[in-house]
Amino acid sequence: MQAISSNEITVLDKESVTLPKGFKAGGMHCGIKRKRLDLGYIVSEVPAVTAGVYTTNIFQAAPLVVTQESIAKENKIQAVLVNSGNANACTGEQGLTDAQEMQKLFAGELGMDPHYIAVTSTGVIGELLPMDKIKAGIKQILDKENEGEENFKQAILTTDTCTKEIAVQFNIDGKKVSIGGTSKGSGMIHPNMATMLGFVTTDANIAHEDLLFALKDVTNLTFNMITVDGDTSTNDMVLVMANGLADNELLTKEHPEWDLFVNGLKIVCESLAKKIAKDGEGATKLVEIQVSGAFSINAARAVGKSIISSNLVKTAIYGTDPNWGRIVTAAGYSGVPIEPNLLGVSIGEYKVFEKGLPCPIAEEEVKGYLENENVVIHVNLNQGDYSATAWGCDLTYDYVKINASYRT
Amino acid sequence: MQAISSNEITVLDKESVTLPKGFKAGGMHCGIKRKRLDLGYIVSEVPAVTAGVYTTNIFQAAPLVVTQESIAKENKIQAVLVNSGNANACTGEQGLTDAQEMQKLFAGELGMDPHYIAVTSTGVIGELLPMDKIKAGIKQILDKENEGEENFKQAILTTDTCTKEIAVQFNIDGKKVSIGGTSKGSGMIHPNMATMLGFVTTDANIAHEDLLFALKDVTNLTFNMITVDGDTSTNDMVLVMANGLADNELLTKEHPEWDLFVNGLKIVCESLAKKIAKDGEGATKLVEIQVSGAFSINAARAVGKSIISSNLVKTAIYGTDPNWGRIVTAAGYSGVPIEPNLLGVSIGEYKVFEKGLPCPIAEEEVKGYLENENVVIHVNLNQGDYSATAWGCDLTYDYVKINASYRT
Repeated sequence: MQAISSNEITVLDKESVTLPKGFKAGGMHCGIKRKRLDLGYIVSEVPAVTAGVYTTNIFQAAPLVVTQESIAKENKIQAVLVNSGNANACTGEQGLTDAQEMQKLFAGELGMDPHYIAVTSTGVIGELLPMDKIKAGIKQILDKENEGEENFKQAILTTDTCTKEIAVQFNIDGKKVSIGGTSKGSGMIHPNMATMLGFVTTDANIAHEDLLFALKDVTNLTFNMITVDGDTSTNDMVLVMANGLADNELLTKEHPEWDLFVNGLKIVCESLAKKIAKDGEGATKLVEIQVSGAFSINAARAVGKSIISSNLVKTAIYGTDPNWGRIVTAAGYSGVPIEPNLLGVSIGEYKVFEKGLPCPIAEEEVKGYLENENVVIHVNLNQGDYSATAWGCDLTYDYVKINASYRT
Repeated sequence: MQAISSNEITVLDKESVTLPKGFKAGGMHCGIKRKRLDLGYIVSEVPAVTAGVYTTNIFQAAPLVVTQESIAKENKIQAVLVNSGNANACTGEQGLTDAQEMQKLFAGELGMDPHYIAVTSTGVIGELLPMDKIKAGIKQILDKENEGEENFKQAILTTDTCTKEIAVQFNIDGKKVSIGGTSKGSGMIHPNMATMLGFVTTDANIAHEDLLFALKDVTNLTFNMITVDGDTSTNDMVLVMANGLADNELLTKEHPEWDLFVNGLKIVCESLAKKIAKDGEGATKLVEIQVSGAFSINAARAVGKSIISSNLVKTAIYGTDPNWGRIVTAAGYSGVPIEPNLLGVSIGEYKVFEKGLPCPIAEEEVKGYLENENVVIHVNLNQGDYSATAWGCDLTYDYVKINASYRT
């Protein structure tokens, strides 16, 4: 992916999944959660080429199984139905039946084949869906008063403290193309699909195989580089729906503006991923680990993930303690054969470790830097030319509080 | 290792490294820490066959490098010198010089070759040892008033809240053989050598190769099966010194009572490992994960370690929440191809999950069980005949407090 000058891509902070042509969305309270919205949808005017990435957890929740089977039929879907408050995970045969029924009922409302509907769920594990409430909800959800992407963004949240959205626009073949996305997730977040859902829509005209290639590539650099607590959930999923209404020439890897599209998708996914990390359960800071000088991209990613996953690094950052020893230690157990005597570490602008030795630091200044809401740590392995970035958050009293009492 | 009837092995709760014949120990305050003891030693009357296991972290601290080189000369050492308060890690060439000087100075006091001394350090990373204080300490440490294993056990502690000790006795060839041990460690604790030090002494007469074989075997089942926070330190080390003064026939794997010795060593190492887990930073509970029905020992260990390392499982146990969903999820991302539909989970005596589905539980009763100081979770994979046990602790407000402010 080559760098694209920013004036070719317009970033829109507040827009989301309905910015691209031909998509509408909505959400409502059907009664799974006590008060907040808990059922949402996205619908495209026409079937959309769809690519998905899914959790690597062996316990894939029922809706993930149903959704993957459905997408496999034509590589297209036309709508997504999401509930929050109940994950429909570890629910056996009945869970599959319920996911299929959600799909069928919503298909009936929309007048389309069930396999055009992706279903997904997030919330408590191991309880059956309250199907009576969901059935009643599906009957009303398309009503005018439930419409709007704000309702959708609200309806997919669990312990999140805010909605997460981003959109970009750029021109391909002289046609305006939009990509918009929203995501949820703040606990059980770890690379290889966190407890997170991501929904991305675009009006780009693009071939399925190429869309999937781009999504996998971008996911490895974005959603798979965040962690909140090291726990990989049963329900993670990111879907990109491309309905082609922008009317550009079919995008493939050979298209001269392919990189522009991938870069736009990357901006959307990276922004959604960082927003999840920043909204990590109990978090007060977004932490970014930039690794450079690695001998391979996988080495760079492994070192970044090892550091961002360290409870000791995360508590030190919460305590604004410039404790580079913990950063170096986490790099040292990453499994990557780094050279201790080549390693350099900076906290913000402050060099704290160089060539295997600590640097004299102005402790109070570095402590002051760590009081920022966004903390950047740079690690140079000085072994090669590869880089990667990982994102996470600090580990706080509130993380313990939320997870000692919230039933996920 | 076959099971040994308990009446063949006597377990002594309060005894430690000086129970075996010919060992003495001591400790003192030399000024690295503010008040508490910070320099300790063990000396054997005669050179002892010695086996060690060391951290897998790429940043091995200077004393580990020096100690390994020294042991390699004759597979024997006669004394150990330990300081706490400073890890002598990430200290470059000067760190190596300091570790060698500690070794040389203590050798001078004892009148033996430096390579007979193991040196080790634990505490803050990245600061040079205060060698003036250590030198002055070494001159006095053998004084009568510093003698006693209690002083040694105190001198090796960092954030530990208590000393850790255990000893066993049994007969081999009609001779009484003793094994005694002590350990430290309560944070930066993760399998593959935690931030922990373990010192085990025995008067058994045993061949070096066999002692190393036994230690590695036992370590994989004990010290490598504990975790506090998933961070593998730079300074971990377990040493076993066997001085032969029990005068039994040379122990080798062919000796008819080999299993008895290994079992005795296992009792000592398992007890020390569990004491470290229970004294985990901020911990209120010792958590034991028993995995059975695995298709291999490595699969059993991987599932156990995955569950005991999960922040979400650990906070749920702190909150006495019978949240089996998090246990199942952690098993699901362990990397082991488990069969969801065969999995069973019990919390204490309470079956909470069976054949891939939740069991109806008396929530309040299970909650009551989780209020115990010792919590046992059993996971049956129902795929084979292998078992493993992992130990850890809950994740509490105090863990965050200790690690947001303590500089390790």
